[in-house]
Amino acid sequence: MTFTKIHGVLLILLCGFSAITPAFDYLQPLPEKPIAPADNPLTQEKIDLGKSLFFDPRLSAKGDVSCNSCHNLAAGGDDDGAVINMPGRLIKRSAPSVWNVAYMSTYYWDARAKSLEKQAVEHILDPNIMAMGHATNLQARLQSIPGYVQMFRAAFGNQPISIETIAQAIASFERTLIVPDSRFDQFIKGNEAALNEQEKRGMQTFTDKGCLSCHFGTNFAGPAPGPALKMGDGFYEMFPNYRGSRYEEKYDFVSDLGRYHTSLDAEHKLMWRVPSLRNITDTAPYFHNGSVNDLSQAVRIMSEVQFNYPITEHEVQDIVAFLQTLTGKYPSLTLPRLPDTSGASLTN
Amino acid sequence: MTFTKIHGVLLILLCGFSAITPAFDYLQPLPEKPIAPADNPLTQEKIDLGKSLFFDPRLSAKGDVSCNSCHNLAAGGDDDGAVINMPGRLIKRSAPSVWNVAYMSTYYWDARAKSLEKQAVEHILDPNIMAMGHATNLQARLQSIPGYVQMFRAAFGNQPISIETIAQAIASFERTLIVPDSRFDQFIKGNEAALNEQEKRGMQTFTDKGCLSCHFGTNFAGPAPGPALKMGDGFYEMFPNYRGSRYEEKYDFVSDLGRYHTSLDAEHKLMWRVPSLRNITDTAPYFHNGSVNDLSQAVRIMSEVQFNYPITEHEVQDIVAFLQTLTGKYPSLTLPRLPDTSGASLTN
Repeated sequence: MTFTKIHGVLLILLCGFSAITPAFDYLQPLPEKPIAPADNPLTQEKIDLGKSLFFDPRLSAKGDVSCNSCHNLAAGGDDDGAVINMPGRLIKRSAPSVWNVAYMSTYYWDARAKSLEKQAVEHILDPNIMAMGHATNLQARLQSIPGYVQMFRAAFGNQPISIETIAQAIASFERTLIVPDSRFDQFIKGNEAALNEQEKRGMQTFTDKGCLSCHFGTNFAGPAPGPALKMGDGFYEMFPNYRGSRYEEKYDFVSDLGRYHTSLDAEHKLMWRVPSLRNITDTAPYFHNGSVNDLSQAVRIMSEVQFNYPITEHEVQDIVAFLQTLTGKYPSLTLPRLPDTSGASLTN
Repeated sequence: MTFTKIHGVLLILLCGFSAITPAFDYLQPLPEKPIAPADNPLTQEKIDLGKSLFFDPRLSAKGDVSCNSCHNLAAGGDDDGAVINMPGRLIKRSAPSVWNVAYMSTYYWDARAKSLEKQAVEHILDPNIMAMGHATNLQARLQSIPGYVQMFRAAFGNQPISIETIAQAIASFERTLIVPDSRFDQFIKGNEAALNEQEKRGMQTFTDKGCLSCHFGTNFAGPAPGPALKMGDGFYEMFPNYRGSRYEEKYDFVSDLGRYHTSLDAEHKLMWRVPSLRNITDTAPYFHNGSVNDLSQAVRIMSEVQFNYPITEHEVQDIVAFLQTLTGKYPSLTLPRLPDTSGASLTN
């Protein structure tokens, strides 16, 4: 099923959403146990290895950025900046959060990767990101670090260190990055008192306005991966949906054509992956270009450019109050000890 | 007492070093408890706050680098690179390790800061490092983060958030970054079996060659701070001591004039703080400009340019074996949760 078909189905389904009941399908609590695809089952060894790799700047050509540099696990899993800041390189899209990322169906703002594994490979090789150029460069580097040789053996047996096993380990660690037990989760599991009146009103407004037509499911970002997800090339939507608004130029919303730059398919102009709303209080600034600092303003913009609806300031504040309930309890993480290369530098 | 007087005294003392005994003063185990100056006593509240600040990229103007970016606590407390890599900025000196940094008497390669507090302030304001420009910029930013307001109140009571209290908290956390119980420490505390024969031979060679004349004390970096440290303007030495060696041009050792650039005193040309040898296996590349990747080569260079001594390859390898015993047991660190600014970005 393509995104347009899903969208159509949802709009029909949404007509039935007149009251909030914790039972309906499109609002789902966050699973507390990680999921994983059949071709990369989770093991503790892969998770441990992936954690080291995630924090290791030696995965970048100059040794200056790790995954954690832009997807900061001490914070919202992102970098607080509009666009990814890296030495001499300017990525024009805002770093999305890595928390709860297992429940996204597609990766990158333009939905060009269908798995965390593919996303990791592309980030490592991309000359604008970690800039390793060719997979063999990183394979050789990790092969020269005795601690990694040992960890790869524990995780992958006799398989050689390769960009595929590197990506599998990183994706395995990322799938464990779950921020459970938000007040929304408590509510949807049956604790009516977990949300106050304003937050419940905000949830109702969020539903009534049609936000759920795209922001549904575990991450409020469309369907999560799994056997039920059969959507052809992924879940993405047009933004801005209504053209010519007062916000378009102000926030530079149409100069980046989104998925079109990857597919060169004219139908993909201004198509974007639906972003997660989980922990959204901690992932400012907002939108693909990080052009909006403030969550209230983001809600105003969405109402106008996606639905061309009027929205009152009361409704905005109610929706923001609801969105604030989507921030969960971050797990405690121990900083890994990166395996060393005794008496030598690899990235100098 | 100035550095030259200390140097003279040491050379006399070293004449008596003919046998290794764990009792002599110039080889000292690492204290397992942190030390602190009288004007900034340690408290758990300051340490906790300092840890958050140390990991928080919002201490830099663009929100792209934290203290931990270059002084990586998942690794050797440094950045594995020759010179500090930061967006659009090239610092020409190698990041020294922050582990065991409490036991240094002076900070920066050119020894221009006498305390960790002063070093922190300078890093935050320096347009080439964290680039906050003026102290009030950072004060205002932290004041707008409710979690920090609370933590500062817990740590400093009614004192306002200021560059001084920020620096005091960071320095307090840094003073707890101790890597104890290296095999050398075990040996110097009386466990003769902690070092093997080659390592003991290396220790003897290290002593006989005169390395201890500068690399003595807790960090093998000269005197540690404390009441006993009265050295005028700090402990630093000339490097290269003998000019015109084959290494000088190869590794670009004399284009940076060190302390002279700070003091503009002609006597300070090529004067440098003596670097720590603790955990040196994990702090490659070596020297102020990070020009040497390999520890063995660093030992060869030191023998030639500091002493103009011949050194055999056996002696080099023995000294390296000894230096490898200086790597201790890194403590486990929990990643802090950085206090958020709900629904807003500060660095965008």
